[in-house]
Amino acid sequence: MDFLRRIVKPKTKEDEDFYYDLKDLLNFKPVKLNHYKKAFTHRSLKMVDKKGKPINYERLEFLGDAILGSVIASYLYKESPRGDEGYLTQMRSKVVSRVNLNKLGKDLDLIRFVKSNVSKNQVGDNIHGNIFEALIGAVYLDRGYNYCHQFIYDQVIIPYVDIQKLEGKISSYKGLIIEWCQKTKRKYKFESYEDTGKQTKKHFSVRITIDGQKVAKGRATSKKKAEEMAAKRVYYAFQKEIAKS
Amino acid sequence: MDFLRRIVKPKTKEDEDFYYDLKDLLNFKPVKLNHYKKAFTHRSLKMVDKKGKPINYERLEFLGDAILGSVIASYLYKESPRGDEGYLTQMRSKVVSRVNLNKLGKDLDLIRFVKSNVSKNQVGDNIHGNIFEALIGAVYLDRGYNYCHQFIYDQVIIPYVDIQKLEGKISSYKGLIIEWCQKTKRKYKFESYEDTGKQTKKHFSVRITIDGQKVAKGRATSKKKAEEMAAKRVYYAFQKEIAKS
Repeated sequence: MDFLRRIVKPKTKEDEDFYYDLKDLLNFKPVKLNHYKKAFTHRSLKMVDKKGKPINYERLEFLGDAILGSVIASYLYKESPRGDEGYLTQMRSKVVSRVNLNKLGKDLDLIRFVKSNVSKNQVGDNIHGNIFEALIGAVYLDRGYNYCHQFIYDQVIIPYVDIQKLEGKISSYKGLIIEWCQKTKRKYKFESYEDTGKQTKKHFSVRITIDGQKVAKGRATSKKKAEEMAAKRVYYAFQKEIAKS
Repeated sequence: MDFLRRIVKPKTKEDEDFYYDLKDLLNFKPVKLNHYKKAFTHRSLKMVDKKGKPINYERLEFLGDAILGSVIASYLYKESPRGDEGYLTQMRSKVVSRVNLNKLGKDLDLIRFVKSNVSKNQVGDNIHGNIFEALIGAVYLDRGYNYCHQFIYDQVIIPYVDIQKLEGKISSYKGLIIEWCQKTKRKYKFESYEDTGKQTKKHFSVRITIDGQKVAKGRATSKKKAEEMAAKRVYYAFQKEIAKS
């Protein structure tokens, strides 16, 4: 605890809980909790600082949107060496579309952290994407670009973004894995179980076993999503073998 | 020279010249010259790699645009703590406007590096902004985000971007400095001289002396621009005194 205090100085039990929840979410230690608190403060709270300046996530959203755009641009530049400028621009629009960002925010269940004076049913769907962007802004201010980059890679690009799928080359990873196993006479098993943990929204985990060996796991808010996530991991693990088959 | 070879391996005299010109421009050592060569290759050259993939600056332009956007967003976020999301978005549009980017590219005289099959008068004005963005993309790939950030700060934000001016609070730094000197009975002198160096485009330097002491210098493609740049540096050096007067 002493070590922890030196880093973040959580003053209250609430701060301490927030710190651990954030650490789980981010996969690294947050340092300045205030940035994250701001990222989850809705304007309806009408919070202001000592100088009367409003405190809410809207400015962080602006910042996070820009950082996300640059990380996705850099990912696409590297992953799609043959795509021209027009193609890259179009792909980026798909990845950072409002619908996609809302989905990301929902899947990470960020709404559980939001403080607001409006009921969660009334705020509309866009809040999920907006607080996701604000969270990226907070990570940037707290730990800098490289942590932000890593967070976006681990939590967004690997589980959710897929050039192959966006380009329409693969429509279902589960289908692809099953087809490959049948073709190459491998035994496969998809096992799913409820795995909500501390989160408010129901979560599922899926484990894929091939020839008796555990190969990959996925966890998401629906069984289908978790299956796709796990199957995608199998795909990346066996990419060469699958391409040859 | 051995030391240099270990870093960049310039194989030809042309590469060596390019290396030193870039180093002057960037204020740091470039490592992989190929990124910068690509940043200055126009599509009209119809260059392709071994696999038939076109080599020109258009993909780098996409990347640089995104990185520039995020650095400017982060600058505005920090410099304008009271500006809301709408204001920040509007300010960023002003800073990264086509007109502004073309001006930046022209002032840095980037066109001198461009290889093209079209005459420099025929390519249009936008090429200046485009290769400026491509250069940022090349810096990002070569040295990473932090070098890019520093380059944009040193070469763009400090000499050219100014929230005070964008907000209409200050229309001329030269006027402001003269007014302040007269009001506070300081002796001032603006000295200008031609200072083109190795560049193809004529450049001017301006030195400002206050009470017999050299205070700041500016260098640009016109006397007026160099004066404003130097006066702005005086402004930042004496900001507190000027505010009190």
